[in-house]
Amino acid sequence: MSSTSSRRLNYDNINPHVKAAKYAVRGELAVKSEEYRAKLGNGDTDLPFQHVISANIGNPQQLDQKPITFFRQVLSILENTKLLEHEDVLINQLDYKPDVIERAKWLLSKAGSVGAYSASNGVPAIRQSIANFLERRDGFPANQHDIYMSAGASSGVNTLLHIICADQNSGILVPIPQYPLYTASLSVLNATCVPYYLDEHKNWGTDIDSIKKACEDAKSKGVDVRCVVIINPGNPTGASLSEEEVRGVIEFAREEQLVIMADEVYQTNVFIGTFHSFKGVLRKMQKENPGKYDNIELASLHSVSKGMVGECGHRGGYFELVGFDEKVQAEIYKFVSITLCAPVIGQCLVELMVNPPKEGEPSYELYKQEYDGIFNGLKERATALHKAFERMEGVECPDPAGSMYLFPTIKVPPKAVEEAKKEGRTPDEFYCMELLKATGICVVPGSGFGQREGTLHLRTTFLAPGTDWVELMVKFHKDFMAQYK
Amino acid sequence: MSSTSSRRLNYDNINPHVKAAKYAVRGELAVKSEEYRAKLGNGDTDLPFQHVISANIGNPQQLDQKPITFFRQVLSILENTKLLEHEDVLINQLDYKPDVIERAKWLLSKAGSVGAYSASNGVPAIRQSIANFLERRDGFPANQHDIYMSAGASSGVNTLLHIICADQNSGILVPIPQYPLYTASLSVLNATCVPYYLDEHKNWGTDIDSIKKACEDAKSKGVDVRCVVIINPGNPTGASLSEEEVRGVIEFAREEQLVIMADEVYQTNVFIGTFHSFKGVLRKMQKENPGKYDNIELASLHSVSKGMVGECGHRGGYFELVGFDEKVQAEIYKFVSITLCAPVIGQCLVELMVNPPKEGEPSYELYKQEYDGIFNGLKERATALHKAFERMEGVECPDPAGSMYLFPTIKVPPKAVEEAKKEGRTPDEFYCMELLKATGICVVPGSGFGQREGTLHLRTTFLAPGTDWVELMVKFHKDFMAQYK
Repeated sequence: MSSTSSRRLNYDNINPHVKAAKYAVRGELAVKSEEYRAKLGNGDTDLPFQHVISANIGNPQQLDQKPITFFRQVLSILENTKLLEHEDVLINQLDYKPDVIERAKWLLSKAGSVGAYSASNGVPAIRQSIANFLERRDGFPANQHDIYMSAGASSGVNTLLHIICADQNSGILVPIPQYPLYTASLSVLNATCVPYYLDEHKNWGTDIDSIKKACEDAKSKGVDVRCVVIINPGNPTGASLSEEEVRGVIEFAREEQLVIMADEVYQTNVFIGTFHSFKGVLRKMQKENPGKYDNIELASLHSVSKGMVGECGHRGGYFELVGFDEKVQAEIYKFVSITLCAPVIGQCLVELMVNPPKEGEPSYELYKQEYDGIFNGLKERATALHKAFERMEGVECPDPAGSMYLFPTIKVPPKAVEEAKKEGRTPDEFYCMELLKATGICVVPGSGFGQREGTLHLRTTFLAPGTDWVELMVKFHKDFMAQYK
Repeated sequence: MSSTSSRRLNYDNINPHVKAAKYAVRGELAVKSEEYRAKLGNGDTDLPFQHVISANIGNPQQLDQKPITFFRQVLSILENTKLLEHEDVLINQLDYKPDVIERAKWLLSKAGSVGAYSASNGVPAIRQSIANFLERRDGFPANQHDIYMSAGASSGVNTLLHIICADQNSGILVPIPQYPLYTASLSVLNATCVPYYLDEHKNWGTDIDSIKKACEDAKSKGVDVRCVVIINPGNPTGASLSEEEVRGVIEFAREEQLVIMADEVYQTNVFIGTFHSFKGVLRKMQKENPGKYDNIELASLHSVSKGMVGECGHRGGYFELVGFDEKVQAEIYKFVSITLCAPVIGQCLVELMVNPPKEGEPSYELYKQEYDGIFNGLKERATALHKAFERMEGVECPDPAGSMYLFPTIKVPPKAVEEAKKEGRTPDEFYCMELLKATGICVVPGSGFGQREGTLHLRTTFLAPGTDWVELMVKFHKDFMAQYK
């Protein structure tokens, strides 16, 4: 009897729904890239590159992005409140401005120690600060009672899907390509993912006909379609929806009586046009047509992980509910209670994000300078990368509009497709693995997000500093095309 | 048509498994106590008390417990790394010792920015530090590859149950009374909770016959019993298991081929005898009887939330796996990947907890003084509270042995039972609600943790400062007994 077979748990008897979940963002390529990084760290000189470029994950501070000084100064006081016994030293010798100290004191007065559990749905005063932000952003009131703080947006998505999906037959409309959190969570929950395709020819916009078709097909198979997920700005696509597109989704949700789950974590990463929040557009539509949209249920998510904040390691986030039944909200409260509360220091960081220094306040100037610097840096790198893709044979990519990603189509020669098959990989996986082996650049194959049959893509962030790596990519592509031509 | 009935989601169609979950620790009483606190905060003088005493949750820093200086100084540097440009100011004017700065630099060199995602299972160097700690604690090697960092132990329990439970028929042996995380998580997962009773007459020890009976009963009903959960030291019971008791459980797990899930988050809160880790005892048994215990699968959990650390708001924790199949571990890795990683600052705090200042190091003296002060304070208050229970009619409570709780039996007069019935409450709920209304002291009714039919209990922490509130409780009890006699 082998030791495996005598174990209680083995691959064949554990939760099949966990096994069915796919999560390529941290899959084989990511693991291989970490192996390479460790090799290089140990002084290995056998590899054809000196650095691993992690362009596979939207992890800004792993790369070039520096944290915003105001945020981190406040957090340092929250962690060591004894610093408040030396305000003069903080101000005169350590570059802390009075508004940093004031904010830290205010947060401590509201949250207590960051080492203590908060209320299950988050510190009330922080939820109020979020409500104030939403009111400023959208021009419509928000209520802290409808806000739930979470450990990053991922944990919020997990909570919402747990409530919405009643059984295997509950269907959730999920965009393809999509961030695999949705499909993976639905697999684990054993609910039904109803994929709908985004329109690559319209800059990965939302195509209502395509959603409608997916919804109707699922319904005709008896699926109880309950909710439509929208990621705006798009991950992995980099799209940014127009107000018209947002209105179209809300109208569709009304007609089909679907909950809208709006993943808006990239709301400040917008390079073309402006961001249109689902909450803001919904409130406008409700005002324009009294009564018509009153029964829309919307959950919108945000986090500290992306944007110019980029603090994903802090796992801070929240979701706001609009139009939800009180009894359903009570179950959401109970559900989040089971894991007690979101990290309190992350909650404080959410507060800082939604309520940054204002013009005229002591920390404003530096804050503005850092914020704009990050924004412009991202935009420049997005543009440089996009230009590089334009130079690459068979690669097509819409202009960078939002989020932290480009998601170009690639075309690979038939010989490469054959080679991929031999290795048991899809052609895009093969391409990305060869790219990693040759250059140390780690990207994610499009198949990890879903793509239309017969098309190939890759997702890359544009967070890595410099442009040298972009040139490496251009060179690799040329060699690859030549090799398999 | 009412607005409720036209909503897509209502109480009747959301996830029934979430609805079925019970979580009393943050239930009605906790909510009511927060209402009272808000009232008092607004200057209300109608209530018969001036303070709310939250004895319902093991939330040390909400009450008297101060964070340990060394930990928080290091964290403050991790949050604001610019402080490292002023080491002289830190040391000469802000009481930072050189080992604080050294540790912060080391953690930064290993984790990078605390604002960046770490590896899904946690920062490798921190996992290595945990492995070193386990080796020192148990006298047997540990491997960082088998350690998974989590957002508090709760999230680790959630991960493990997700993997172990394959379907509705998968059974998990859970102690009664228990911390309701287990029953609630099993409800949400729609797996089978197989309750076994702890032995109140043996200081809430583990009674193997009782576990065996529960296991056999469940098996005879066709339940696929897979795992036994042990909480040691006990929550809510305050018990602390002897080495014999731990050996008994391991022997039983071997015979029945069950995974052991050892919730050891209170491992430093031990007031009688010493803590015996499942890992340490298992390795001893493996050494004594080569081959016999090789197939035991053990998952043991720990966190920064309890003990003298008490940093529950930081959501830091980990679990170590022993004897698990590699392929099963790969699925665990994938599962934790879906929510990306545990909060990185919380991971750093885990490192500080398992690797505190050593004798001779600059921060040691203060660390030791703070640590011992907290330990002795907890022990004193536990003793004072226990003595108070001894003075209360019909209340019985074993000596405080471990964790942060006392879990006395209470007996209430038949008239109170009737009154409770009228209010639709169990007698212990009624007692605890009356206690809250009269004194502002919030405890948790025993029924929130499960108890033997016909017995009544309450769980109280002994974290609240002072002893005035203990006297309030004694007085309330006397009045209550008189009123309903």
